[in-house]
Amino acid sequence: MPILDNIRVVIVNPIYGGNVGAICRAVANTGISDLALVAPRDLDMLEAVKMACAATHVLEGRREFPSLAEAVADRSMVAGSTARLGLYRSHSQSPREMAPKILEATEAGKVALVFGQEDNGLSNEDLALCTHIIQIPTAPEFRSLNLAQAVLICCYEIYVASGLFEPSQEKSPEAPSEIRERMFDLWRKTLLEIGFMKEDKADHMMLGLRRILSRGKLSGDDVKIMMGIAKQAAWAAGKGKKTADSDQ
Amino acid sequence: MPILDNIRVVIVNPIYGGNVGAICRAVANTGISDLALVAPRDLDMLEAVKMACAATHVLEGRREFPSLAEAVADRSMVAGSTARLGLYRSHSQSPREMAPKILEATEAGKVALVFGQEDNGLSNEDLALCTHIIQIPTAPEFRSLNLAQAVLICCYEIYVASGLFEPSQEKSPEAPSEIRERMFDLWRKTLLEIGFMKEDKADHMMLGLRRILSRGKLSGDDVKIMMGIAKQAAWAAGKGKKTADSDQ
Repeated sequence: MPILDNIRVVIVNPIYGGNVGAICRAVANTGISDLALVAPRDLDMLEAVKMACAATHVLEGRREFPSLAEAVADRSMVAGSTARLGLYRSHSQSPREMAPKILEATEAGKVALVFGQEDNGLSNEDLALCTHIIQIPTAPEFRSLNLAQAVLICCYEIYVASGLFEPSQEKSPEAPSEIRERMFDLWRKTLLEIGFMKEDKADHMMLGLRRILSRGKLSGDDVKIMMGIAKQAAWAAGKGKKTADSDQ
Repeated sequence: MPILDNIRVVIVNPIYGGNVGAICRAVANTGISDLALVAPRDLDMLEAVKMACAATHVLEGRREFPSLAEAVADRSMVAGSTARLGLYRSHSQSPREMAPKILEATEAGKVALVFGQEDNGLSNEDLALCTHIIQIPTAPEFRSLNLAQAVLICCYEIYVASGLFEPSQEKSPEAPSEIRERMFDLWRKTLLEIGFMKEDKADHMMLGLRRILSRGKLSGDDVKIMMGIAKQAAWAAGKGKKTADSDQ
């Protein structure tokens, strides 16, 4: 089992408190909680608190280290994110390629995800401490990501790859053919009854309706709604007919 | 071919200029440029410009609409992002599931990605205009994403799925076996010469070295570096021996 608690997000020399706060929130969104700052400048902590929103536990629990070497000293895998190309960077991997490797590494040891300063990214010295280099896919004409956005992409890929997320399930299961056919029978009767189609065109028209209603899965609840409409339309038309009859 | 220009990011009633600016940057990072705001409040445009960084073309090119219906009027696919569960939301899909469908839709028509206000997200009225619902995977105990972060995740998944990104390639191709074996021969000679191992232990030690150097792919450049070290070590040891000899 991958252990998200074995992942530490390390930010080298962050400048803006707002970014640090946004990072706290992004990290919490993805089930990670260990944040380390390396020699932060005078951070605007009011901005940090504001952007962290409810992720104050990450902000308050952050650790600070004088150097990157110390922040990653107990980490076996050290993955640094860089947008620049060149020296050391030609063998970079995408966050999606790295995610399963990072998760595997958390089972046996501790991992650091390292990000550089807002303006300059990671230095060559910083990158030398990294065992792996991550490059985030971006449009070639606009490659510079906001620091918190870069952190989010990496953590999001790890969270998705962890399989920990359980998407909300459709509560009503897909309707079986028998129920669906009962619905189409009802609609056929109603459409004839309300005068939408004549008997000789009915087969053709019903194929059209089948096509429309078969584009996506129909749940049991969906079929109930469609049958309810058909019944009600037939009832209303019958009532209308009776009223028209009694008017005569 | 998918057409990213056919994708419009729509933000309903944004409150914070900083978020709108961060969205401009995120959108530009992923090759999208069409941003629409629905009835924005008094946005702090200084904050917006600051957070947009170089993505001023997106900020300046933004369109504003009085209602969501008007912002998506010409869109065939309308995909709304929501974090809340419940009504309409049980059949949501993840950004990764939606990305190829969105790209396919851009080939024949126009697409809107719709996001709600920072505080409240999309209303049921807004969701009723959506043909598809997106739910971003987040940690269950911390589900509320920053607005710009939510936009980034959706756009990033689309950009990655588009296949438009070309990762930087390793320039030096992987070394063929023949070159690798020449390197191991050289290391064997050197390690004997400098007295690191004796002939009877050499095979065993070389297996260890092979194991270490075979964990990742070795490029032609990598092999050159390793051969250079072995040669230099042998040369330096030979020189040391000569000096030691002449001392006697």
